[in-house]
Amino acid sequence: MNISAADVKKLRDATGAGMMDCKKALIEAEGDFDKAVDILRIKGAAKAAKKAGRGTGEGIVYSYIHHNERVGVLLELNCETDFVARTEDFHELAKQISLQIAAMKPRWVKREDVPEEVIAKEKEIYTEEMKDSGKPEHIVEKIVENKLNKFFEDNCLLEQEFVFADEKGTKIKDLITSAIAKIGENIQVSRFARFEIGE
Amino acid sequence: MNISAADVKKLRDATGAGMMDCKKALIEAEGDFDKAVDILRIKGAAKAAKKAGRGTGEGIVYSYIHHNERVGVLLELNCETDFVARTEDFHELAKQISLQIAAMKPRWVKREDVPEEVIAKEKEIYTEEMKDSGKPEHIVEKIVENKLNKFFEDNCLLEQEFVFADEKGTKIKDLITSAIAKIGENIQVSRFARFEIGE
Repeated sequence: MNISAADVKKLRDATGAGMMDCKKALIEAEGDFDKAVDILRIKGAAKAAKKAGRGTGEGIVYSYIHHNERVGVLLELNCETDFVARTEDFHELAKQISLQIAAMKPRWVKREDVPEEVIAKEKEIYTEEMKDSGKPEHIVEKIVENKLNKFFEDNCLLEQEFVFADEKGTKIKDLITSAIAKIGENIQVSRFARFEIGE
Repeated sequence: MNISAADVKKLRDATGAGMMDCKKALIEAEGDFDKAVDILRIKGAAKAAKKAGRGTGEGIVYSYIHHNERVGVLLELNCETDFVARTEDFHELAKQISLQIAAMKPRWVKREDVPEEVIAKEKEIYTEEMKDSGKPEHIVEKIVENKLNKFFEDNCLLEQEFVFADEKGTKIKDLITSAIAKIGENIQVSRFARFEIGE
């Protein structure tokens, strides 16, 4: 499909989209100008939705210091507006998450944050453990996968079971999802630090 | 100066010091056995002092949250005993250091913590800046060194000027040295975290 520079320019002028996006849209629309405009509109809406999903530029920095002062947690909890950041519900959520971090020592927020080399090392250990099991390879693979999931559940904050949950099996991500539903804004844990004396 | 293996062995047996230390001491003492023993004793005492200087296994985790809740600091401040960790003086020091971190955004505790690649990058920038200055190489080197020192003073907590100092020019390390003198125990900043919303 050959798209002329003039067509790209016309579409840019009509939609305000970027040059590469216009070119891609024209290729996708097989040169049909109106169809290309529709494609760009849909993409634009999707981008906006995605942005809203990520738009947690407000929030609070919260800290919890254990009464013996030997364990402390610093947490950045984000939401979409300054208004929500000041609510009691939002502070209560920050407190619960901080207590969880103090008690359960997660190492990362989510599994995507675990470095590749850590995952590789864990896999190596699990595979080594199964070496003489005599189990077929696909079973070993499945077991290694399960163990790795367990590792994520133990070490990633969002996947940990909430230690003060009323209902057994409630994970930190469930706690946050509930808060999002209640508060009506997207909420995200950006980062945390946990210091312990003598660690 | 020729030191025989037999002399080294004799000194080792007499003092319990390591082989290399014994050899060095004998060289320094120009073969005089008693003098070598003295040298090793002095070095041993210095080593012990150094060790005691490092023995900061106690302390507190302290936090400071700015009143707008958009900036927070977590600090691990160490001392030698639990007793000192509970004193008001020690807490006051922790507070002052935390306020400094909140206000002046240090990136590392001390210059030894700055990664090699960061230092290399800084040096590269400074050298590039001086490229067309026409200054001789040894002058350029001196200027680069000065700029690097300035970089450490800006970015390393211990080298920063204390922002609330009564006396101009007081660095954080001076603040800590004063506290050590007053409290009578070695004190160390192990680590800190500083979170800011929208950073």
